[in-house]
Amino acid sequence: MTDKELKTPELETPEPEMGEAENRVGFEVSVVGDIIAALDSENINAVREIVAPLHYSDAADLLEQLNAEQRRLLLEYAQDILDPEFLAEIDETVRDEVIEHIGLDNVAEALAELDTDDAVNVIEEMHEDEQQQVLEAIPEADRALIEQSLSYPEDSAGRLMQREVMTVPQFWTVGETIDFMRESAEQEEWAVPGLFYEIIVVDPKYFPVGRVPLSVLLSAKRPINITDIMSDEIKLVPATMDQEEVAHLFRRRDLVSASVVDEVGRLVGIITIDDVVDVIDEEAEEDIMRMGGVREDDLYSAAIDTTRSRFSWLFVNLITAIAASLVIGFFQASIEQIVALAVLMPIVASMGGNAGTQTLTVVVRALATKEITTANAMRQVGKESMVGAINGILFAALMGLVAWLWFDIPMLGAVIAMAMVINLVVAGLAGASIPLFLEKVGVDPAIASSVFLTTVTDVIGFMVFLGLGTWLLI
Amino acid sequence: MTDKELKTPELETPEPEMGEAENRVGFEVSVVGDIIAALDSENINAVREIVAPLHYSDAADLLEQLNAEQRRLLLEYAQDILDPEFLAEIDETVRDEVIEHIGLDNVAEALAELDTDDAVNVIEEMHEDEQQQVLEAIPEADRALIEQSLSYPEDSAGRLMQREVMTVPQFWTVGETIDFMRESAEQEEWAVPGLFYEIIVVDPKYFPVGRVPLSVLLSAKRPINITDIMSDEIKLVPATMDQEEVAHLFRRRDLVSASVVDEVGRLVGIITIDDVVDVIDEEAEEDIMRMGGVREDDLYSAAIDTTRSRFSWLFVNLITAIAASLVIGFFQASIEQIVALAVLMPIVASMGGNAGTQTLTVVVRALATKEITTANAMRQVGKESMVGAINGILFAALMGLVAWLWFDIPMLGAVIAMAMVINLVVAGLAGASIPLFLEKVGVDPAIASSVFLTTVTDVIGFMVFLGLGTWLLI
Repeated sequence: MTDKELKTPELETPEPEMGEAENRVGFEVSVVGDIIAALDSENINAVREIVAPLHYSDAADLLEQLNAEQRRLLLEYAQDILDPEFLAEIDETVRDEVIEHIGLDNVAEALAELDTDDAVNVIEEMHEDEQQQVLEAIPEADRALIEQSLSYPEDSAGRLMQREVMTVPQFWTVGETIDFMRESAEQEEWAVPGLFYEIIVVDPKYFPVGRVPLSVLLSAKRPINITDIMSDEIKLVPATMDQEEVAHLFRRRDLVSASVVDEVGRLVGIITIDDVVDVIDEEAEEDIMRMGGVREDDLYSAAIDTTRSRFSWLFVNLITAIAASLVIGFFQASIEQIVALAVLMPIVASMGGNAGTQTLTVVVRALATKEITTANAMRQVGKESMVGAINGILFAALMGLVAWLWFDIPMLGAVIAMAMVINLVVAGLAGASIPLFLEKVGVDPAIASSVFLTTVTDVIGFMVFLGLGTWLLI
Repeated sequence: MTDKELKTPELETPEPEMGEAENRVGFEVSVVGDIIAALDSENINAVREIVAPLHYSDAADLLEQLNAEQRRLLLEYAQDILDPEFLAEIDETVRDEVIEHIGLDNVAEALAELDTDDAVNVIEEMHEDEQQQVLEAIPEADRALIEQSLSYPEDSAGRLMQREVMTVPQFWTVGETIDFMRESAEQEEWAVPGLFYEIIVVDPKYFPVGRVPLSVLLSAKRPINITDIMSDEIKLVPATMDQEEVAHLFRRRDLVSASVVDEVGRLVGIITIDDVVDVIDEEAEEDIMRMGGVREDDLYSAAIDTTRSRFSWLFVNLITAIAASLVIGFFQASIEQIVALAVLMPIVASMGGNAGTQTLTVVVRALATKEITTANAMRQVGKESMVGAINGILFAALMGLVAWLWFDIPMLGAVIAMAMVINLVVAGLAGASIPLFLEKVGVDPAIASSVFLTTVTDVIGFMVFLGLGTWLLI
C-alpha cells in the first residue's frame, strides 16, 4: 500500500521543500546550464549526479530544453536512473525521439511501472506497429487493462479514467468496509488503487448507486450502514463521452470525481479532478494556438515541420489578401488622381480588423466555455454592433480630423470618417456572427473565424473608403 | 458531518443522472426559454417551479443569460429558493447587479452558508464599504476566518486556501486518529472540514511534517503509528505566493494538494487541486482575452463599458496604423507613377502580420507555461527566423508570379518577392523577440506584443516593398 509515492528513500533532504524557489526560471536554467556543461565535457558522473535527484517533471523539462544531440547523450549516460514517469510528462514530439533512443523494450519496462492511465497516454500516441510491440512486452495483467482502455475512442472518458476503483456492496457497514480495505492492502493480491478519494457503492449488477467520500467514511462509526452515509448525488459519465465534455461537466458542477459506466450502465472506472486538469490545459492551449493559426505541438517541432504546418494557414491568408487587393485594383484610376487615398486606406482596414478581432476573441471563447447559447446569441450580436457603432463614431471623428489636417482636404476627412463608422459596425457584426455561424455548421470557430473576419473587414474597408472617395472627391 | 452536499432531499429523481444530456446547449436553452415565458407572464409559481430544482451552477448561468429586467424579476420571485452557492459561481459583472437587488443583509446570510474560500471569493470583489457592512452581518466565527483570508494579498495562496484542515500530532496512531475524527464529527463543536482528502501531521509548533492520504489511513491497522504511514514528500506553499505560481506548481508536480504556511512556516491552510482548476481557467482566459485586446469580463459588461474598455486598445492600434501610413506617405510620388504598388502593398504587410502572429502565439504561450527559459530562448528566435525565411521564399515565388502575371511587369514580381522574404524573416524575428523582450522588462507579453509586432511588420513591409519598387521600377 505504501507505494513509491509515499516512501521516498532517494529524497536527500529530510525537511519538506518550499515550493517557490524551484519554480523560478533561474532554477531550471542553472540545471540546464550545468547539464550542458557536463555533457559537453562528456563527464558521465557529473551528468548522473545532476539527473539523479530530479523530479520526473523536471527531467521531462530538461530533455525538452536540450537539443537533439544533447538529448541522445543524456539518455545514453543516465537513462537507467530516470523516473519512468517522465515518459508520460514529456512533450510528444520529443517523446518520439526519446523512444527511438532508448528502444521499445526499455519503454515497455518503463510503462509497466506507470499507472494505467499514464501508460495509455504514452501508448496511444505511438505508431500502430510500435504499440503492438510494446504491449507484447508488458506483463499480462497490466496489458489487459491498458488494452481495454485503448478500446475506447481517442479523447474519450474511457481513455481518461482510472481502471482501479474501490467498490463496496450496498449491504456492508462502515466497519466491514474498513476491514476489507485493510485486508486488501495487506494481501495486495487484489488491485487496490494507490490513492483514491471516495468509495463507490454498487448494486449486484455492478451499477453504481452512490458514493462515500473517504472523509465521511472515516468520521462514521463502525456499525453504521454504508447506504446511510452514502450520497446518491453521483455523476455518471459514459465511457464514450468526449474528454472536452467531461472537463466541462467537472467545471460546471465543481466535481472532484465522476464514475465512468459502459453502455449498459455498469461501472468501469473513475475519473478524478486531477485527470481533468490536463484536459482543461490542453483545451485552452488548443484554442489559443488555433486562434493564432498554429498547431499545438509547434514549439518543439523541428523548423521544417513547423514551416510546413504553418504554410497552409498563411496560404489561406494570402488568398484573402489577394481578394482585398483585387478590390483596390478596381479603384486604380481614383488612386492615380488622389494618392492620399492609398496612403490612408490601410488605416480603415486595420481598424476594422482589430475591432473585429476583439469581438471575435470574446465570442469564440464564450462558445468554447458554453457561455453563449442560442438564447443569448442574438443579444450578443446586437451588443457588438452597438459597440462597433459607438467606437466607430469616436474614431471617425478622430481620424476625420487627422486626415483633414494632414492633406488639407476637408472632404477626405468626411470620407474616412464615414468609412470608419461603417467598417467598425461591420467588424462588430461579422466578429460576432462568423463564429456563431461556424459553430452552427460544425466548423471549429477557433480555427476558421479570423480568416473570414479579415476578408470581410479588408474587403469592406477598402471598398467603402475607396468607393466613397471616388464618389465624393473625384 | 453528513452535510447538505450529501443529503439531498430536494432531489426528485432517486436514480443517478447521466451527465451528458444536460450539458448539451439544448437543455440550457429550454430552461431559459421557459423561464423567460414565465417571467413575461408574471407567473410566480411557474418561475419558482423551474428554479427550485436547479443546480447552483445552472442558476448562475440562467441569471447570466437573462437581461437586467428579467434578472430583477427572477430574484424578486425566487430569491429565497436559490442555493446561496450561486453567488460564488456567477460572473462578477452580473454579481454586482444581483447583490444590489437582493440587498447586503441577504448577501451576508448567504455567505455565512458558504465555505470560507467561496465567501472570500465573493467578498473580495465588493466595494470596501460594502465589504465592511457584509462582514459585520456574518456570524463571529465565520467572520474571523474570512477576515484572516482577506488579510493576504489578492490572488495569493492565502486567498485560495481552505482554512479548515484536519491535523494530527506526530505521536498518534491510526486508531487514535480515526477515533478523533469520529468524535469530532459527532460533537461538531470543532470545525471538521466537510470534505478532505488527506490529514496533515504537525509538530508541536504546528509546522507540517508529513501528510497521510485518507486512502492510506483507511488501509492501515489501528495500532500503527501515524508517522510510519505518512509521506514526508509534502509541498509547502507560502501564503503570499501568487496563485499563478501555485497553479504552475500543481501542474508541474501533478499535486492534488499542498499545505499553506505563514512566514515562519506554521500551517495555516490547505489548497486542493479543485481550487486550482479555477485559477488555471482564469489564467488561460486572461491570456486569450489579452491577446485579442479585450478585458476578461467583457462578455457580460454593458455595451457602454465594453466600448470604453476596448477604445484604448483600438486607439493604440490607430497610432500604429498612422505610423504605417506615414511610411506610405513618403512614397506618394512612386505610387502616382505605378499604381500597382498601392494595389499590392497590403499583401506584403498582411502576410508579415500573419506570419508574425503565428510566432507570437507560440512564444507568448510558451512563456506563460514557462516552457521557454533563457536557456532555449535564443534557439527559438533562430528557429522562428529560419521558418520565416523558408516560408518567405515559398510565398515570394508564389506572389512574385502572381504579380508578374497580373500587371505584366516582371520586375514588379521580383520586387514583391524580395519584400516578402525580408518581411517574413523580420516577422519571425520580431514575433519571437518582442515577447521575450517584454517578459524581460516586466511587461505582460500577452497584452503588448501584438501592437509592437504589427507596427514592425507594417512599417517594414511598406518600406521595403515601396522602397524597392521606387529603386528598381522608376
